[in-house]
Amino acid sequence: MTIPNEDGRKRVIIEAISPAVDGGLFPAKRTVGDLVRVEADIFTDGHDAIAACLLAHREGSQDWTEIPMQAIVNGNDRWTGAFRVAELGRYGFKVQGWVDHFATWLRDLKKRIEAESDAPVDYLIGADLVTAAAGRAAGADAKWLRQRSALLRSATGIASLRASATEAKLQELVLRYPDKRFATESDREFVLVVDPVRARFSAWYEFFPRSTAAEPGRHGTFADCETRLPAIAAMGFNVVYLPPIHPIGRQFRKGPNNNPESKPGDQGSPWAIGSAEGGHKEVLGALGTVEDFRRFVASAQALDLSVAMDIAFQVAPDHPYVRDHQNWFRKRPDGTIQYAENPPKKYQDIYPFDFESEDWAGMWDELKSVFDYWIGQGVTIFRVDNPHTKAFPFWEWLIPAIKRDHPEVFFLAEAFTRPKIMYRLAKLGFSQSYTYFPWRNGKAEITAYLTELAQTPVREFFRPNQWPNTPDILTEFLQMGGRAAFVIRLLLAATLGSNYGIYGPAFELQENRPVRRGSEEYLNSEKYEIRHWDLDRPDSLRPLIAQVNAIRNGNLALQSDWSLKFHFVDNDQLLCYSKESEDRSNLVLTVVNLDPHHTQSGFVTLPLDELEIPRDRAYEAEDLLSGERYLWLGARNYVELDPARRSGHILKIHRRMKIETDFEYFL
Amino acid sequence: MTIPNEDGRKRVIIEAISPAVDGGLFPAKRTVGDLVRVEADIFTDGHDAIAACLLAHREGSQDWTEIPMQAIVNGNDRWTGAFRVAELGRYGFKVQGWVDHFATWLRDLKKRIEAESDAPVDYLIGADLVTAAAGRAAGADAKWLRQRSALLRSATGIASLRASATEAKLQELVLRYPDKRFATESDREFVLVVDPVRARFSAWYEFFPRSTAAEPGRHGTFADCETRLPAIAAMGFNVVYLPPIHPIGRQFRKGPNNNPESKPGDQGSPWAIGSAEGGHKEVLGALGTVEDFRRFVASAQALDLSVAMDIAFQVAPDHPYVRDHQNWFRKRPDGTIQYAENPPKKYQDIYPFDFESEDWAGMWDELKSVFDYWIGQGVTIFRVDNPHTKAFPFWEWLIPAIKRDHPEVFFLAEAFTRPKIMYRLAKLGFSQSYTYFPWRNGKAEITAYLTELAQTPVREFFRPNQWPNTPDILTEFLQMGGRAAFVIRLLLAATLGSNYGIYGPAFELQENRPVRRGSEEYLNSEKYEIRHWDLDRPDSLRPLIAQVNAIRNGNLALQSDWSLKFHFVDNDQLLCYSKESEDRSNLVLTVVNLDPHHTQSGFVTLPLDELEIPRDRAYEAEDLLSGERYLWLGARNYVELDPARRSGHILKIHRRMKIETDFEYFL
Repeated sequence: MTIPNEDGRKRVIIEAISPAVDGGLFPAKRTVGDLVRVEADIFTDGHDAIAACLLAHREGSQDWTEIPMQAIVNGNDRWTGAFRVAELGRYGFKVQGWVDHFATWLRDLKKRIEAESDAPVDYLIGADLVTAAAGRAAGADAKWLRQRSALLRSATGIASLRASATEAKLQELVLRYPDKRFATESDREFVLVVDPVRARFSAWYEFFPRSTAAEPGRHGTFADCETRLPAIAAMGFNVVYLPPIHPIGRQFRKGPNNNPESKPGDQGSPWAIGSAEGGHKEVLGALGTVEDFRRFVASAQALDLSVAMDIAFQVAPDHPYVRDHQNWFRKRPDGTIQYAENPPKKYQDIYPFDFESEDWAGMWDELKSVFDYWIGQGVTIFRVDNPHTKAFPFWEWLIPAIKRDHPEVFFLAEAFTRPKIMYRLAKLGFSQSYTYFPWRNGKAEITAYLTELAQTPVREFFRPNQWPNTPDILTEFLQMGGRAAFVIRLLLAATLGSNYGIYGPAFELQENRPVRRGSEEYLNSEKYEIRHWDLDRPDSLRPLIAQVNAIRNGNLALQSDWSLKFHFVDNDQLLCYSKESEDRSNLVLTVVNLDPHHTQSGFVTLPLDELEIPRDRAYEAEDLLSGERYLWLGARNYVELDPARRSGHILKIHRRMKIETDFEYFL
Repeated sequence: MTIPNEDGRKRVIIEAISPAVDGGLFPAKRTVGDLVRVEADIFTDGHDAIAACLLAHREGSQDWTEIPMQAIVNGNDRWTGAFRVAELGRYGFKVQGWVDHFATWLRDLKKRIEAESDAPVDYLIGADLVTAAAGRAAGADAKWLRQRSALLRSATGIASLRASATEAKLQELVLRYPDKRFATESDREFVLVVDPVRARFSAWYEFFPRSTAAEPGRHGTFADCETRLPAIAAMGFNVVYLPPIHPIGRQFRKGPNNNPESKPGDQGSPWAIGSAEGGHKEVLGALGTVEDFRRFVASAQALDLSVAMDIAFQVAPDHPYVRDHQNWFRKRPDGTIQYAENPPKKYQDIYPFDFESEDWAGMWDELKSVFDYWIGQGVTIFRVDNPHTKAFPFWEWLIPAIKRDHPEVFFLAEAFTRPKIMYRLAKLGFSQSYTYFPWRNGKAEITAYLTELAQTPVREFFRPNQWPNTPDILTEFLQMGGRAAFVIRLLLAATLGSNYGIYGPAFELQENRPVRRGSEEYLNSEKYEIRHWDLDRPDSLRPLIAQVNAIRNGNLALQSDWSLKFHFVDNDQLLCYSKESEDRSNLVLTVVNLDPHHTQSGFVTLPLDELEIPRDRAYEAEDLLSGERYLWLGARNYVELDPARRSGHILKIHRRMKIETDFEYFL
């Protein structure tokens, strides 16, 4: 006879465990200090009571912590248990469930007692179960249980038997020594990767180091970059992100505005990496030395700013890899190396790596050493350029390999590509991901997309990082909507996304001129030339940005996306949503006028019960941007936003108003 | 260096394969002749073209059939392929995907040719790919490919190169010999269980053999049962289902209306199985002999009726198992065997099996032999009583074990219990399942529940069998709604459920008296006594039942649930839904007035495009019940149903009306 598992008496079923990405094939993501709520469907045949627990540990450790699980009330066989992950790195958990004969007996006995149909034999059955528990216990517990078992066997009268059987201590002690002989265990361990808090809550500021010189015309240096840091920190950002800082190729170098021809003195694109000066482990001489870079990183850290480095795995034709590792590139039959192309367009300034190289393993090792090198220089965040044009197995190997030694390091995937590819990269280990947010401007599309990201199992592995602009993306909305468009997109990014970022100087100054109509490229893009920005211009958005970041930093609700809920407004140009802190002490409601041109007004409808807002008392909606305080009552409240003055409210909801009265009756 | 799989160059990702139950942990269900549509997310990094195929076989066979897959247009990396399962039993399939360098080259070359930027080196690249394909080919194909490769290398001028490269035969031949060196294969085989068509499309008629005597008072026999068969077949049923036919226990036998005391002459409940006469492999003497039963089965088969047998794994205290296998039952400390109970209620006429018995394996073998015995007597369908009170691992082992030798056999789970338990039993192998249908009477709840069953992944493993009544279930709706309630529930069950059944005599005669107010039990239930039914009563529903079954048998659309779609009606008492045959040649629209008391009317709104009904032409809705023909136009059409006359339309939609005109202009 073949039987389905080792013992046919394992009667408990465990299904649908969460968190689990693709059934446990990939780790779920958390950050340090998070409460991990595990759920599972757990049930057995018939009417016996069951019990269940979690077993959790640091991955690889033999030291398991047992955490009891409870059935969720009206949860249809869904059980839950929770533990907190206090440290960086990888944790694992399993779920166990078993039939609890003692609990079954006690439950049934209480019904019998109520119906006065309990008989001595019922107590004998209990006595046997208590004896068995005593056998699993030790010391004083075992002794107490043996004594209790004897009591249940003694014929001391029904009143005394009832008291002995139903005493809380008995239940508590037996529970401590469960009979797990036929326990079922989930057939795999489910892994969690615990990242730094900044992987969940970060505000990124991107700028080009070469555009940081105080005086126009000069090439910026790391020392110039350092002078920018205090202003960035004062704006409330916590990540500074630099495009590649490596030597720039000279062969086929691009001129301004992506001109295929460059003139002497043209700086080229920082993404065309490598020249005789060196490759991915060197810095461009004009910026300074690696020591200068290290000093920059240290200055940033002193301001609690993390430095995010751009890793673009592609090379200029004069990169040293081309000379030293010809077999990492695809060769054409004429002996030349295959440049990048999107036929009939040619990108002769760039050679892609060939991930089908015979020496793929050697290439992987070298590419990993690039990360290791920069980690050695103090970098903890990597923004990876176009990871979707490198083989997936490479990332699947690389990211856990790096994080094993450096669990504090994390990775942002710059993959603006098809949804399943973006999700796969996140499953393979990328800690944050760019999103389609730049192109989601309407209420319906924002609601659908952000709900998918924040309220479906996608959130277990895919952490959005919302950017209104990047050096590659100047959206139509920003091109056409004037200053209000920038305000709208800032408010949305910063309150919808606990992770968000801006391509800073261009955003602050509302740079909105495209290279040509119909293009999302900037005119005179910094990607191909040095720009000099007048960051002190009076129309700069800097004060608003600083205020928004201060609000983020001061309100726990905005530091995660998982509580995001959209609310009805009877005007399709008004978007309303709320976020709450895990402990529900902090509730922030954002209302944005998506129309950059016209005043829009309407009634917001809030689900009062769900938000725990009392139906019968006024509550305060405090606008954290303007300082105004609105007294709201009931579910429907009026909102009006004029983009000439402001495009949104960020409202802190004070649910329980303290109304102090101080008056007398004057008769 | 540790790498994630054997070769880092396997660049294609395969995800989210369907059909797959719990990621492939359990088989998906199909019936003989079904087209199996497999889908998967398949993609790679970068911009290379990919190719994919299915590998399918009879489970265990080494003979795999390769079936090409295609990308679904606008399918966001979803691919599909299909094959037909022609035989009963188990099939398996896997998915393979690989980067197709030849397709990539040809796609890019065509773009180059269009831009007139193709160069000789491009043809050399192609020549190398063709040479490689020649190496994988044999015979004439290899020779042709070698010649074509040479052509691509020759400097015969660009026009000739272009023609040689883009000839359809080249693409076709290379495709025949793909380069699968770095192909990715799904990491498991996905299993399908192929059942008889009757597992998908069946109409069940349940009756108690002991109530079949022609004259009142006499105990019916198998011979009497045979006389019932022609009428049942004439009504269009294809399964006859008998409650247990075994010897009935005498100890603690129940009297009429579940009286705990029985008098001499009381027949007892057929579910209290076993007495000195024998157990699960014997028949009750009053019904006849096993030979009589075999004759009954043969008579049924001659009418194309399958016989479904009730398997209830529980015993009466005088069942031979109690004597011979005391260790299959739970013993109490006083030496007595634990009877069934729901404290404080006691069911002393029934002993449950103890699935934690030391001798569980021996017990499993014996219980399996019960099925084997009755299969030997010609039974092919088993209706299993309360499978949820037996250990899940038992069914997980038993059902595949039976079906391995008898793939024509199938199982109906009678588990009216919590949803996850019902679904788990289906995953473990039950071919059909009772549902919550009896208690779903409102439009919203019917729509939600049936959509869950027919339009979510649940349908891959859970086949509903819809019953308006059973000997245990006389719903409030049937008790109170008069004749119309029976008509409504018949129409719903038979058109919503390609599998449905009735507890026949009671349903035909609209038996609606409960044993007491608030109970779903019948007064004078056949479960405890012999009943004599006057099946020729003029108010019988027999003609309507026959008509409905004839409609089911004549319309492919009603023979599966997978096409079920609900449509809007502006009246909450009117329910409208459609089903279509797989080839879309047969479209049936059902409209039911859920209100048994009042005439209800409203406008049905159909999604014309989805149903492929032309917007600009009238179409015919032919009522298959009344023979009336309605000319409908556009999406919205009026419906009115008076329960005193009829409670529903079953409308065959003729989408392309042939309007023959035969007139002249009279001027």
